[in-house]
Formats: sequence, structure tokens, C-alpha cells
Amino acid sequence: MTRHDRIAVLAHGRFPDDARAAIELIRYGRPEVVAVIDTARRSPVTSQLVRTLPQIPIVREFDDVDEPVDALYVGIDLARDGPTAELSEPVRRDVRAALAAGGDVVVSRAGFPVDDPEFERLAADGGGRIVDVGAPPPGRPREDDRSADVDAEVLLTVGTDRYVGTSSTAFELVAAARERGVDAALVPMSHVGVLLEGPGVSLDRVPTGRVHDAVDGLVRERGERHDLLVVEGQGAICHPGSSGQICGLLHGARPDGLVLCHSAGRELMHGYDVDLPSIPAYVDLYERLAAPVAPTTVIAGALNTMNVATPSAAREAVDDFAERLGAPATDPLRFDADALLDAIDLG
Amino acid sequence: MTRHDRIAVLAHGRFPDDARAAIELIRYGRPEVVAVIDTARRSPVTSQLVRTLPQIPIVREFDDVDEPVDALYVGIDLARDGPTAELSEPVRRDVRAALAAGGDVVVSRAGFPVDDPEFERLAADGGGRIVDVGAPPPGRPREDDRSADVDAEVLLTVGTDRYVGTSSTAFELVAAARERGVDAALVPMSHVGVLLEGPGVSLDRVPTGRVHDAVDGLVRERGERHDLLVVEGQGAICHPGSSGQICGLLHGARPDGLVLCHSAGRELMHGYDVDLPSIPAYVDLYERLAAPVAPTTVIAGALNTMNVATPSAAREAVDDFAERLGAPATDPLRFDADALLDAIDLG
Repeated sequence: MTRHDRIAVLAHGRFPDDARAAIELIRYGRPEVVAVIDTARRSPVTSQLVRTLPQIPIVREFDDVDEPVDALYVGIDLARDGPTAELSEPVRRDVRAALAAGGDVVVSRAGFPVDDPEFERLAADGGGRIVDVGAPPPGRPREDDRSADVDAEVLLTVGTDRYVGTSSTAFELVAAARERGVDAALVPMSHVGVLLEGPGVSLDRVPTGRVHDAVDGLVRERGERHDLLVVEGQGAICHPGSSGQICGLLHGARPDGLVLCHSAGRELMHGYDVDLPSIPAYVDLYERLAAPVAPTTVIAGALNTMNVATPSAAREAVDDFAERLGAPATDPLRFDADALLDAIDLG
Repeated sequence: MTRHDRIAVLAHGRFPDDARAAIELIRYGRPEVVAVIDTARRSPVTSQLVRTLPQIPIVREFDDVDEPVDALYVGIDLARDGPTAELSEPVRRDVRAALAAGGDVVVSRAGFPVDDPEFERLAADGGGRIVDVGAPPPGRPREDDRSADVDAEVLLTVGTDRYVGTSSTAFELVAAARERGVDAALVPMSHVGVLLEGPGVSLDRVPTGRVHDAVDGLVRERGERHDLLVVEGQGAICHPGSSGQICGLLHGARPDGLVLCHSAGRELMHGYDVDLPSIPAYVDLYERLAAPVAPTTVIAGALNTMNVATPSAAREAVDDFAERLGAPATDPLRFDADALLDAIDLG
């Protein structure tokens, strides 16, 4: 993928609550986000809607972006209402406008018609491209032995539930490692991750039997070029909606270490009237499940303390989590990722 | 799906080694298989190639089938070389011929062009239909609480490795239960299973995050109409190529009991230079993984003794397996499924 320096992010109708990719692109993306495009435009700037974000203009359509950009990133889930849903007219309009202006359009979801004749013609005329950064690997799964290790240190973020920060923790870890001068790379596994550091794999587009294969391929390829890989985990081994994903990632990535992510105070499984297993039970389960294929251990923990009011209470919650975990822990978003980085063997 | 009484099964170039669905349709299918269609035609009859099969003619093309049929079932993996591979000319020819004769064409794989204009026209003219029995569920995954149990007794077959008989055991269990007069149904999860008792879900077409949802929907729907459901498991919780699938099935099906399937003498994981975990370790892992969502236990075991030469050595292997399992066991294909059926609580 061509490297983009300045981009606009499409988030029609959904910024900020349902436009996670837009937010993470602003926070962690390499290219500078010069505008968020949203027909709803709940505020003129992002920082008024999400206080931890910098002040970036929100405009109603691509033609209102008043600085030149290299690309339009589609930062919402176009397949939310089914993989064959049609693009809404505002999305079509802005994709057309971006291509007509000679820019690229970057997407990572089922739901985008990659061979739309109008888009293809506009791309050909303008010199831009439609880039799909989250496509599943082609062909049949490999079944040969892949027991051999890669040189890079490989970490995988795993959760105690859905929505506990497996993605954010991976993003923070990579950013913090780079700040320390470590040659780190994300192995993106979500819609959001591939927009940040694509090309990669958007797991929601991969059939179950291919997850191990998809992550294995990326780990091998990037493991040759970097010293630290952080595989963006998705969900929890006991959550029905994500257990299959994380299981495939665990066996496919063959990580040297796991970072267990949890949300302070979370007791019931997301969407289920079921108690979350204890932290030690989770550590045990992840390690047992990995052991037959590639033994690994939980080396650190990341606690999301967003719902904890004061910093001192958050510190206390982190300490308590570390104790139950039997490993160092932090809230990488609220504090910093030092405790995680210190736990990594970068020999 | 219309019930078919007499069918032909397409297996071009691949019967018997790579035409599992054709074999299982002959063994377990409700409709009578009157011919296998294979351009390679390695023998005039199936029983000369697979000695446990009845004697069914093998012909080179649909027009050579000399008895009338209701439908042509596509019994090979059309997507083997990628989901967008084109149909080979012999496949196209026979699909055309079946539709032209007014029959249905039943498929369950990615790789079949469901809206092919020529096929659609022929179907419209002849009165037949193209039936896709393995399509993934449409729309978004449900995330509401699904803790409530279904009335039917639900079993799930789980493996110690790939290719140890999770499908065959499920097929045998359903057949044996019906022989005892139990109202049993398969919950099919494979290409083969959906051709046998479709419509269902062919897991290789379901994205990882949807497996639990797909199986849950089928279990609920069929659980209202039957007393015993056997969910066709796929692979093993420690095999990278299938761990995600079986994990999603375990959490999505919420089975009342598990049947652990193993292959006699298997020590290394299929395709990996890795020792298989012990039988007790597997029992422990499956039960631990299920516990937080819906506790279940391994109630019986199925041992594939195909590679054991004598019946007495096979009996010995089964006894040894039962002992390590701490539960009754059998080889349902070589002996019978009584030990499995006796272990089921049909109260």
C-alpha cells in the first residue's frame, strides 16, 4: 500500500460512538487525519465529542475538506447490516469525490463493492486506487508443519471478555515500544487494526478454519522485518462470540507471551447472563490451551479503568489485578505501557 | 428444501478419495443414491472402490444415469482451489443437464455461482431449483442473552485431532438413535453434513465470529422439533486448523454432553510435528472451556479403529480408550453405537 501522509476519514452518521476506526486512526495512525466526514456532524470538531482526541474538523462531505489529502479511509463498518448491503448515497458520493480528486480509497470490510464499475473508472481516470487492506488470505489453508519459530518476539493480547481492550492494548504497546526505539509492528486482526497498519487480516472476513493460517502468514512475513510483533487479539476464550477467533489466533500466532486484558469491575460476560471466570482461571485456560501447540505464558496484564473515577482508585484496581494475575499490570491508556514493555524479553 | 427420493451425486475426478460427501450420502443419506458421476470412473461400481459401500453404478456424466432422479447433489468441494475458482466444464455440463431434465441441483459450498444466468434460466424453464444448503446465517450476529436451554437433549462430537471421526460419529449416532425409535436429528456443520441433512451451516463458509450464532440458531430451531440433537463437531480444540471452529461450536451449541472422538494409535497432531495431548488432558480442557458458558461433560467416546487389523485388537483398543476416558466407548463404524446411545440421558 502506498504510504499516505494526510487523510480524511469517512464516518457517516456514526461519529463518535460507532466509528471506532476513525478514533483509532486519529490516535494511532501514521497518516495525519485532517478531517472526519460525517453527515450527522454532531460538532464542528472531534475534541468536543471525545475529550481525549485532538481538535480535528468534522465536515459533512468530502468536498468540504479544506486541505488536500492523499486518501479517504472508510472508518465505519459498511457490512453492519449484512455483507451485501448497498452503500448509502453519502458514502458513494464521497468515494466518488475522493477518487475524482485523484486520491486513494482505503477500505477493510466486506460490504464495499471492490469491482464497482463507476469507482473503477474514476480510479483509472484520476490515478488513485481502491485499496482493500483486510482481505482474507486466498487459496487453501496450508497444512504443512509450521512448528518452527520466527525470530521476532511475538506477543498476543487476549481478553477476559469482549470489549476489554485487546485492540487498544496492542496499539498502545506498539506505539510505546517504538518510542523506546524498538522496531515493533502491529499484526492487525480487525477492521480497525488493518486501517491503522494494513495490509493485514480483518478476522470478521475470515472463515473459522482459516484464522490460524491468516495470522501465521502475517507473523512469518513481519517477523522477518521487525524485532517485536504485537498480534491484535480479539475477544476472550470464554466468550461465545469471540472464543473461536482468539483460539485460532492463539494457535496460529504461536506467541512468546500473552498480555491479558480485562475491564475493571466487569463481572458478567458481555451479552450473556453468565459470570466471568476468575483471572487465575483465565490465565490457566489460555496457557493450557496453547501448551500442546506452542507453550506460552501470560507475561503481563492490561486493565481498562475507564469506569473508575479517580486516578488513585484506578491505581488500586491495577494493583489488585496484577496480584490476581501474578504478573505486572497497567492501564496503558490511562497511565502508560511501561509495565507491559518491561515484561517483554527483547533479548 | 423439497425432499428428494432418488438422487445422483456429482464427484468429478475425485471418487472415492476426495469425495467424502458422495460416500456419506450413500451411507447415511435419506434419498437413495442411484448413481455417482465421475469423469474418471475408476470402476463401474462404488463397491469395487470402497468395500463397505453398496454396489452403485458410477457413470461419466449426468446423461448416462439410466434411472430418473429428483436431484443432482454436488458431492465435491468446488472451492478447493479458492472460493472464486470457475466451475470445470464437466461440472457445468452436468448441472445444465440436471436442470434441463427438471431436477434440482443441491450444493453446499462456496465456489458454486448461485446466480449464474444460464443455470437460472434452465431452472426456471425446467421447474427445478438450485438449492444452497450450507449458507451462513444472514445479517448481524445476535448478542442478546441466550443462556436459556432448549428442551431437546443436545450432544456435540469433539475430537482429539482433525480427521478422527467427529462427523461420522455424529452421523452414526443419529442413525442408531432413529433405529431405536428416538426422534433424533443431525445439526450439520460441514459440507458433508448439510448435504445429508440440510439446510444447515457449512462452517468453512462462516466467519469466525459467527460460528456460535450459526449453531445456536440451528439448535434452537431443531430443538423444538426433536428429542435428541447431535451437533456435528469439526476437529479438535488443540488443532490450529480447527480449534476456532470447535470452540465456537462448544459455546454456541451449549451441549448437554460431549462425545470425544479419537483415532487409535494417533500420536502426532495432523499436519504438525506436535504430540497430541493425553485423553484425560483433552477431557479436562473441553470441560473447562465449556464451564463458564454452559457446563457439560464428556459422556462417551468414539474410537476410529480403521487402522487396527483384527476385531479383537480393535476391542482392546476401545477398552483402553474407555479407561483413559473414564467413560463408555465404542467404534461406532466398526461395531455399533450402543455404548454411546446408552450414555445419553433421554429422560
